[in-house]
Amino acid sequence: MKQLDPLFFPKSVALVGATPDPAKLGGIVLRNLLRLKGTVYSVNPKYGEVLGIPSFPSVTELPETVDLSVILRPAAEVPALLEAHRGKARFVLIVSAGFAEAGAPELQADIIRIGREGGLRLVGPNCLGLYNPRHRLDTMFLPHACLKRPKSGNVAVVSQSGAVMICLLDAIRMSNTGISKVVNYGNAVDLDAPEVYRYLADDGDTAVVVSYLESVGDGRAFLDAARFLSDRKPLLILKAGKGAGGGAAAFSHTGRLAGNYEVFHSLMNHYGLHEAADFDELLDGAKAVSYQRPAPGTRVCIITNGGGSGVLAADECTRRGLELPCLPEGVLRGLRASFPSFYTVANPIDLTGQVRVDDYREALFAVRDVCDGFLVIALTGVAGVTLRLADHLREFREQVGKPLVVHIAQGGVAPRLIRLVERAGIPVYPSPERAVRGLASLLVKGEPHG
Amino acid sequence: MKQLDPLFFPKSVALVGATPDPAKLGGIVLRNLLRLKGTVYSVNPKYGEVLGIPSFPSVTELPETVDLSVILRPAAEVPALLEAHRGKARFVLIVSAGFAEAGAPELQADIIRIGREGGLRLVGPNCLGLYNPRHRLDTMFLPHACLKRPKSGNVAVVSQSGAVMICLLDAIRMSNTGISKVVNYGNAVDLDAPEVYRYLADDGDTAVVVSYLESVGDGRAFLDAARFLSDRKPLLILKAGKGAGGGAAAFSHTGRLAGNYEVFHSLMNHYGLHEAADFDELLDGAKAVSYQRPAPGTRVCIITNGGGSGVLAADECTRRGLELPCLPEGVLRGLRASFPSFYTVANPIDLTGQVRVDDYREALFAVRDVCDGFLVIALTGVAGVTLRLADHLREFREQVGKPLVVHIAQGGVAPRLIRLVERAGIPVYPSPERAVRGLASLLVKGEPHG
Repeated sequence: MKQLDPLFFPKSVALVGATPDPAKLGGIVLRNLLRLKGTVYSVNPKYGEVLGIPSFPSVTELPETVDLSVILRPAAEVPALLEAHRGKARFVLIVSAGFAEAGAPELQADIIRIGREGGLRLVGPNCLGLYNPRHRLDTMFLPHACLKRPKSGNVAVVSQSGAVMICLLDAIRMSNTGISKVVNYGNAVDLDAPEVYRYLADDGDTAVVVSYLESVGDGRAFLDAARFLSDRKPLLILKAGKGAGGGAAAFSHTGRLAGNYEVFHSLMNHYGLHEAADFDELLDGAKAVSYQRPAPGTRVCIITNGGGSGVLAADECTRRGLELPCLPEGVLRGLRASFPSFYTVANPIDLTGQVRVDDYREALFAVRDVCDGFLVIALTGVAGVTLRLADHLREFREQVGKPLVVHIAQGGVAPRLIRLVERAGIPVYPSPERAVRGLASLLVKGEPHG
Repeated sequence: MKQLDPLFFPKSVALVGATPDPAKLGGIVLRNLLRLKGTVYSVNPKYGEVLGIPSFPSVTELPETVDLSVILRPAAEVPALLEAHRGKARFVLIVSAGFAEAGAPELQADIIRIGREGGLRLVGPNCLGLYNPRHRLDTMFLPHACLKRPKSGNVAVVSQSGAVMICLLDAIRMSNTGISKVVNYGNAVDLDAPEVYRYLADDGDTAVVVSYLESVGDGRAFLDAARFLSDRKPLLILKAGKGAGGGAAAFSHTGRLAGNYEVFHSLMNHYGLHEAADFDELLDGAKAVSYQRPAPGTRVCIITNGGGSGVLAADECTRRGLELPCLPEGVLRGLRASFPSFYTVANPIDLTGQVRVDDYREALFAVRDVCDGFLVIALTGVAGVTLRLADHLREFREQVGKPLVVHIAQGGVAPRLIRLVERAGIPVYPSPERAVRGLASLLVKGEPHG
């Protein structure tokens, strides 16, 4: 058994501060925890039973040593509660806020000391904790009516911030991808990103790791773990707290110094680690690598039915260091022979507003061997783009297997087409530039992953 | 009457290449044109009548000189057709492609000459033309089933590319804003951006102009017109064809050289003209200035219920040259007195996942006088964010009047809340960084517009 298995697959969970009241955090978390594939205990001296499970006055009374205990009580009560956990829990998740991030570093020092002396592993404080759909583990104090959970999938999320974590969860759900494991570790008094990275590196359910950071405790340990992970699967990191204002905000958020961003950034670069510039870029990259595996090479062909959209995509390719090679004379001749004279046969290939859907197929297969990645732009405002495009894209993807992303914009068959294309394992993006950002994370300059 | 009035408000329009067949471009455009507040004539020797309107064998037979004639016939036929227009039309819109952009510069030279000799103003070729909802003018060859038209509003679109124009139209519709006038001028053999900019500068229906360019014919004329316009109302420009690949793509797209982007960029900067980096940024800025008027000052206050989202927004403020001032001691003291100790009272103000909706109101009014613009972040995954937030935001906007934008993410009441907030004249964005980009276009370093 690996070290973090009891955290992600707990056989038994205690909730300190459980209540039957659905309007209170303790009532929300209890309802979410009751879905667990395992035993759940309530700890609350006010009740003998809560929502059909036994409730104990203190963790000391629990009938077993639980894998995970979740504390939902005010910060001032946490040290005494933690003392009581000695020998009764492996991991203790402290959801409560009000520690270093709120100007109470001594309270935080107390819980660190108690955890060490008691042999307790700590997660948090000031966090939402865990979500593992395969084990139906969910410690988030967010009602399902407010946050729909994403389905089971291959994306892991490691986030210092709870807010960014829930934004990522929702965005991943909307991307038609799914989640392997999620952890939000807040002030990180014990469990921190490096340990989770190493665990996920060997996790068979996880194909890609998306990580949001504001601060790094031990820089060396962080970089080593990040490299260990990213040698095995794609790791996308968004580091916030970059400027003066953001750095100060990051400090008040989790009580750790954001550090000098320039130093962080140059070390990331030096170690070949991939960094996203902002939330949308993190998401666009994550979507791509959750759909397809990265492959070597940087030569891109753009096939579009809108000239301007092709130009915007070409600009973004240049910014991302992707090439738009000239197509070989033989390929050009073949395409010119089959297409009307007003199509532009070059790279981008512009099939214009008068496109017929089979033109996309012809263009794709003509360039299959001369490029490493492909961007198809389909503006559905014109009548020639039909749902059959999804069949052509699926066929190309199955036969050729190289990275392929699609930008579909507005109107007509767009919603149905997007669904069909994504079901075929091809990610769709809402703007030309975002599609190129997705493609860029699938095209690696050195060796492929895996 | 201003020079471009017959173009945007034609009393009579002829369609050369009209057909009753709804599957052909001539059938689609005819259906869209028939909504016009004015007279429409078909020109097609095959018919005596099309869809209930008279059809003439040639423009020479038209019973009047039309304000606008639209040519939908293949490129090779256009010179002869254009000859026939002499004295029969003020403006001729050439939708057809197949000129300089398709390697036929001599055909393009022909139509330029014929237009000049015949005293005809030309739009295009290789374009979609015009959309003016107030006059129900619509020359686009896109069926309504494929592209829903945005409602009437205050945003003008001036686009060299038809594809980017239709993407903008759809995005503007989704932003709950509306359109004043749209023109897509393609290869720009006669009508070009500068003339349109000057017309829109004095257009009472237009509050903001969004412009997509790939090339600029006369650089001096362009910059003069852009300054003339942007002295009167916000002008947002996206210049594509930036890198080597994009520049080549832009050339094959409209047959004009993209020019050296660095030179363009530094001139734009020099003249204080606003340039968007990509499609999404163009859209985010346009949305903001279509909802609210820009105001002077760069001091921003962020009020959030998610710490990490606040940090990401703070980072983007730094990148955009916006300040996050420390709040005065009196303001801090007041907020600390009313809020729980685990809220972070600083800038950003972090109301945490335990926020109550009235806390937003309290925070906003506390900082009203110490900042120039405000970003409210509401993560609806937590139970405390209710629809009443829209009332608080409306009240603040009405009483204080300073720029205010909102980021709302995922779940629960989000869709209804977004609608209510936008109805109150406050733009909502899907990520912290995009919200800051919107706010940045409302905060001007020098004098305010208007």
